[in-house]
Amino acid sequence: MPLRQIAELLEGEVVGDPDVEISTIAPIQDAHPGAISFISNRKYIRQLAETRASAVMVAPELRDRERPEGTSLLLLDDPYMGFALLLQHLTRRPREVFGVSERAHVDAGATLGAEVNVHPFAYVGPGAVVGDRVDLHPGSYVGAGARIGADTTLGPNAVVHHDCEVGERCHVYAGAVIGSDGFGFAPNLRTGLHVKIPQMGRVVVEDDVEIGANVAIDRAAMGETRVGQGTKIDNLVQIGHSASLGRGCFVVSQAGISGTTSVGHGVTIAGQAGIAGHVKVGDGASIGAQAGVHGDVRPGAKMLGSPALEGAEAKRSMVLLRRLPDFRDKLRDLERRLAALEGGGD
Amino acid sequence: MPLRQIAELLEGEVVGDPDVEISTIAPIQDAHPGAISFISNRKYIRQLAETRASAVMVAPELRDRERPEGTSLLLLDDPYMGFALLLQHLTRRPREVFGVSERAHVDAGATLGAEVNVHPFAYVGPGAVVGDRVDLHPGSYVGAGARIGADTTLGPNAVVHHDCEVGERCHVYAGAVIGSDGFGFAPNLRTGLHVKIPQMGRVVVEDDVEIGANVAIDRAAMGETRVGQGTKIDNLVQIGHSASLGRGCFVVSQAGISGTTSVGHGVTIAGQAGIAGHVKVGDGASIGAQAGVHGDVRPGAKMLGSPALEGAEAKRSMVLLRRLPDFRDKLRDLERRLAALEGGGD
Amino acid sequence: MPLRQIAELLEGEVVGDPDVEISTIAPIQDAHPGAISFISNRKYIRQLAETRASAVMVAPELRDRERPEGTSLLLLDDPYMGFALLLQHLTRRPREVFGVSERAHVDAGATLGAEVNVHPFAYVGPGAVVGDRVDLHPGSYVGAGARIGADTTLGPNAVVHHDCEVGERCHVYAGAVIGSDGFGFAPNLRTGLHVKIPQMGRVVVEDDVEIGANVAIDRAAMGETRVGQGTKIDNLVQIGHSASLGRGCFVVSQAGISGTTSVGHGVTIAGQAGIAGHVKVGDGASIGAQAGVHGDVRPGAKMLGSPALEGAEAKRSMVLLRRLPDFRDKLRDLERRLAALEGGGD
Repeated sequence: MPLRQIAELLEGEVVGDPDVEISTIAPIQDAHPGAISFISNRKYIRQLAETRASAVMVAPELRDRERPEGTSLLLLDDPYMGFALLLQHLTRRPREVFGVSERAHVDAGATLGAEVNVHPFAYVGPGAVVGDRVDLHPGSYVGAGARIGADTTLGPNAVVHHDCEVGERCHVYAGAVIGSDGFGFAPNLRTGLHVKIPQMGRVVVEDDVEIGANVAIDRAAMGETRVGQGTKIDNLVQIGHSASLGRGCFVVSQAGISGTTSVGHGVTIAGQAGIAGHVKVGDGASIGAQAGVHGDVRPGAKMLGSPALEGAEAKRSMVLLRRLPDFRDKLRDLERRLAALEGGGD
Repeated sequence: MPLRQIAELLEGEVVGDPDVEISTIAPIQDAHPGAISFISNRKYIRQLAETRASAVMVAPELRDRERPEGTSLLLLDDPYMGFALLLQHLTRRPREVFGVSERAHVDAGATLGAEVNVHPFAYVGPGAVVGDRVDLHPGSYVGAGARIGADTTLGPNAVVHHDCEVGERCHVYAGAVIGSDGFGFAPNLRTGLHVKIPQMGRVVVEDDVEIGANVAIDRAAMGETRVGQGTKIDNLVQIGHSASLGRGCFVVSQAGISGTTSVGHGVTIAGQAGIAGHVKVGDGASIGAQAGVHGDVRPGAKMLGSPALEGAEAKRSMVLLRRLPDFRDKLRDLERRLAALEGGGD
Repeated sequence: MPLRQIAELLEGEVVGDPDVEISTIAPIQDAHPGAISFISNRKYIRQLAETRASAVMVAPELRDRERPEGTSLLLLDDPYMGFALLLQHLTRRPREVFGVSERAHVDAGATLGAEVNVHPFAYVGPGAVVGDRVDLHPGSYVGAGARIGADTTLGPNAVVHHDCEVGERCHVYAGAVIGSDGFGFAPNLRTGLHVKIPQMGRVVVEDDVEIGANVAIDRAAMGETRVGQGTKIDNLVQIGHSASLGRGCFVVSQAGISGTTSVGHGVTIAGQAGIAGHVKVGDGASIGAQAGVHGDVRPGAKMLGSPALEGAEAKRSMVLLRRLPDFRDKLRDLERRLAALEGGGD
């Protein structure tokens, strides 16, 4: 495909030869003629002068940067996004439709949209509604009354329990469980026989969400547990009952969000972080890896450590921790000098 | 149902109108006439004066508290427990029995009790014994020689491996794995080819236990891994080989209990906490979120932090950490004043 | 079996009676006549004098140690390894071959080796290649074009996605997911609609690897995520896209290894530890439980804490933390004495 066509696809401007043929994508340091590459990180800028790529996607401010004669530029506001969109374009394949496998189980009371694939050993319960072009992979489970939006995929052995809802263009990866009972009990510490609070609510997953392998998202006791539009959830994450996540969040692997906690829009929660129950996390906040958040977080705050502090305070505290040997030495020195003075005063 | 009937069910005393009709349960601040509510947390007591609920479950000491004219009281020793039991009562539905699906696999050598449901794609191995009124959901697995007690449910894709035992009235949620091999090897660091220790034991889960989605409980190398009666385990928890948990424990999501560790009765282990191997945790202890326990814990102790300290010590240590900037300033001040004195002594 | 035969099996030397009959293995403190036991930990050496075992596997340097008359010794360089190999030998059972269940789904374009078992509800996709003597348990999944090496087992509901490769003599436990998409997106923070980076790579698991229950190992964006020969992975572990693990590593339960991180040979990663992305961990390093590693780790280093420090430094820092109350008291004392001196100077 000529560079001109890529420029049209990504709505960018060509500097150089719009007719150069592009046949592959490659990292800038490995690229050969015929490849298009991209620079999104400042530290790769100087590689532009030496690349063998036929074209490089760069930010407009690199328009006049030195580059090899055989290398054209494609100016884009967000070159990394350009890379992602181009890769999506090149790897897109027509979806095969084979329909409902004889070895699947679709309840007579379920409703399937057009061009749905139900693989062997997938289960669709009574009253479930499955949208157009949905793929239900082997061993996946759609409970009674659950709804799966158009163009969504359930991976092998993924589970969506009864009455829960997954939006359009979502991907629920293998082994993820949506809508299991929340962890709610009235404790009887005398007998040890705690009484279960029936979990009467459900889970709602909005459109364009990804839910990683072996994730667990519990249904609410009453009302909803909710995952907002475009939010991406990595593997092995836990989301407790009645928690809510806003739009466009990232939740990295093995993080845990406790019940009834409310996370705003555009929040990043790094790996193995935990957020206690009944907490509010403001829009645009970011929670560091392994952080433990126990109270509300203001919008845009960066939280680090367990228990978590705001970034600047957390870093100050870490610097001081590193200075403890220094403090100990200073204390010894002061003590010695003070004793000398006291002795001298005799 | 008239309030009188609820009072009989929960063995409580009515103060007010025993004939008022109750049709729903609601939080005290949202309740409308016809609803019953409850107060278990002190901070909601003052809402009693303004509620619109027809009845409120409260502790006996609130008998004479001011309340609206149209609101009756139901005195209960544990109002939250009353709420749980009433909710259970109201949401109970007759269990449907459809028997063994044609698409399930039940080995000829397995034994099924009365009124068992085996859903499509569920598997019951040779020699397995499944009690009365058990539900085996799609994709669930009962290994050879395993035993499932009466009234227990295995969720979709839940796995109980060979020779393991699950008690009565248990719920094993979707994707949980009981009885996978323990992590035991004789290391050969020279070749890197570690030799597996065959894991010959099993897992025993006593009655009234809940095991959350995607939990993993390993079988013992020899003997048993055991989960005590009434213990509740949240999602994504790990329990290592030969570990034991007593009766009535709570283990919150993503916590990990290492092999051969013994946890007493009524212990709470909060989210993402970890307990090292070969440790004893006493009855009634509580382990904080993200805590890391490396040694024995005495009964009733509250442990916090990683490595974990007893609560009071952990809090003292945290307070001192916060005072580090203060220490640094004091050190500077002392140094300056001491230098002045030393200079003055010249 | 006479002790002589065990000695031949394990290539050890008998001290005592080579004809004594051995019928079981037992811990040294519980052993009865007829049992063989072992000592690998120094603290059990003195139990040798009082054991009732008919034979004990010990290191050669214990050859002349005092022992009961009825107890023979079997000298082995690594007695624990001897125990493991003997237990393996004794518990080995002939593998039953029943072939492909009528209730399994094997695509017409898949290739199965000799003596393969495909249990009910297992799925083998088009172009998949399954080696000799492989067991595919109920609900397990082998994606299109995936390869499973000889003598490997996939547990119930284990998933190996398309084009991924698992070596020979591996065990993938129940619910583990190999080859789910890596967590890669081009963020669009303005709209919150992040764009997915297609994950075009795969996962390669070399020979003799164990992968625990409900583990998640993501496929690479480009190239491979790789797990080296003989590495053992415990339950609920996360391994991100394009990460690599060398030969003979141990990764304990709930640990997480981020994308593009490279772990050397013979590395131990303890429970709930986390390693950030783009990090190199040297051969033979060990990462402590709940540690958080953010930078490169040199070969053989022992890392502790979050953020992780090398062992010696981490321990020093912990000792100093414990001394904070002492520091506070010393500061007070110095202040008082200095004030006295200053007052005295008036």
